[in-house]
Amino acid sequence: MARHQEFETDEALHQAMKVFWRKGYEATSINDLLKATNLSKSSLYATFGGKRDLFLAAFDSYRDARKSEAIKILNQTPARKGIEQFYKMILEGAKADEFSNGCMSINQAVEMAPHDEDVRVRVKQDFQLMEKFLTQTIEQGRLDGSVKGRKTARELSRILVVAFPGLQVMVRAKCDQERLDEALQLVLSLLDEE
Amino acid sequence: MARHQEFETDEALHQAMKVFWRKGYEATSINDLLKATNLSKSSLYATFGGKRDLFLAAFDSYRDARKSEAIKILNQTPARKGIEQFYKMILEGAKADEFSNGCMSINQAVEMAPHDEDVRVRVKQDFQLMEKFLTQTIEQGRLDGSVKGRKTARELSRILVVAFPGLQVMVRAKCDQERLDEALQLVLSLLDEE
Repeated sequence: MARHQEFETDEALHQAMKVFWRKGYEATSINDLLKATNLSKSSLYATFGGKRDLFLAAFDSYRDARKSEAIKILNQTPARKGIEQFYKMILEGAKADEFSNGCMSINQAVEMAPHDEDVRVRVKQDFQLMEKFLTQTIEQGRLDGSVKGRKTARELSRILVVAFPGLQVMVRAKCDQERLDEALQLVLSLLDEE
Repeated sequence: MARHQEFETDEALHQAMKVFWRKGYEATSINDLLKATNLSKSSLYATFGGKRDLFLAAFDSYRDARKSEAIKILNQTPARKGIEQFYKMILEGAKADEFSNGCMSINQAVEMAPHDEDVRVRVKQDFQLMEKFLTQTIEQGRLDGSVKGRKTARELSRILVVAFPGLQVMVRAKCDQERLDEALQLVLSLLDEE
């Protein structure tokens, strides 16, 4: 029974995460959350505290999943292939029929981070982690010969970190797929310059 | 009297714009708008239609102002100085005591553009305009000798266009000022490579 309850809680959190990811924090109503999680109002509050607590828990579960995924993708040989795949994932969203949810952390950098310290700390942490992972991957690429570039690994990774939210935002605004592909290739070409 | 009314309408629009810019669309209530514009509910609806119409009018007035400002800043000699100043303006926001409003067009790329066609069209237009202005400025920089770079003007401008929302988002999340300065200098150094 306890295990069953844990499963139900995880599933409710996952469904709440999907709504928050799609609609953002403000546009998500308690009714949206009740419908998505299939919980009664009293058990939603008893289990998760309230809208903001549920949001933070959902955001953290999103961040954990994305972090594992990023490590897996970046940890490839040749390393440059990992970096390219990591960035191509962003552009996949541009092909979505309806609209791209984008990256929840980037969306929250815009929506909540400016006035909510708990969200801001998380978003900043995500940027720092991304810089760290990309720097390591670029260093790996120097070793396996797949990354050249005229700048240091840390410099290249700082440019790539800026391009990440840049491309996410442009995908979310449904900018031209072709334009975005070209922009990405241009940014990645910094890894190849001799 | 007509002129006075026009002035009042412009002023109300300006005040509404500031609220929407600061809080976003969803988090702005009708009460926020009444308070900011000093209008009664009936005259707000009579003058501007409703929340969404008022938002679109406010967004357009913001976009017009920013467009004029961008043209003025980019139209300098040497051209590279104009580009640097344009991007440094983004980072000024990071110094704000409270939080940075960022760029309303970038915020709306994340908040409304995915599901509102009228907003999306505007945001995409802004990206296209930025690419056009930056390409022209880089070409001007080639002529006045301030821009070098190993890529074509259009290629350089596409990378710069991606960096614009990237930096805006990072400023809004209050990323380290120093980190951001360095990231900007790295991106701008692409204009100097030989």
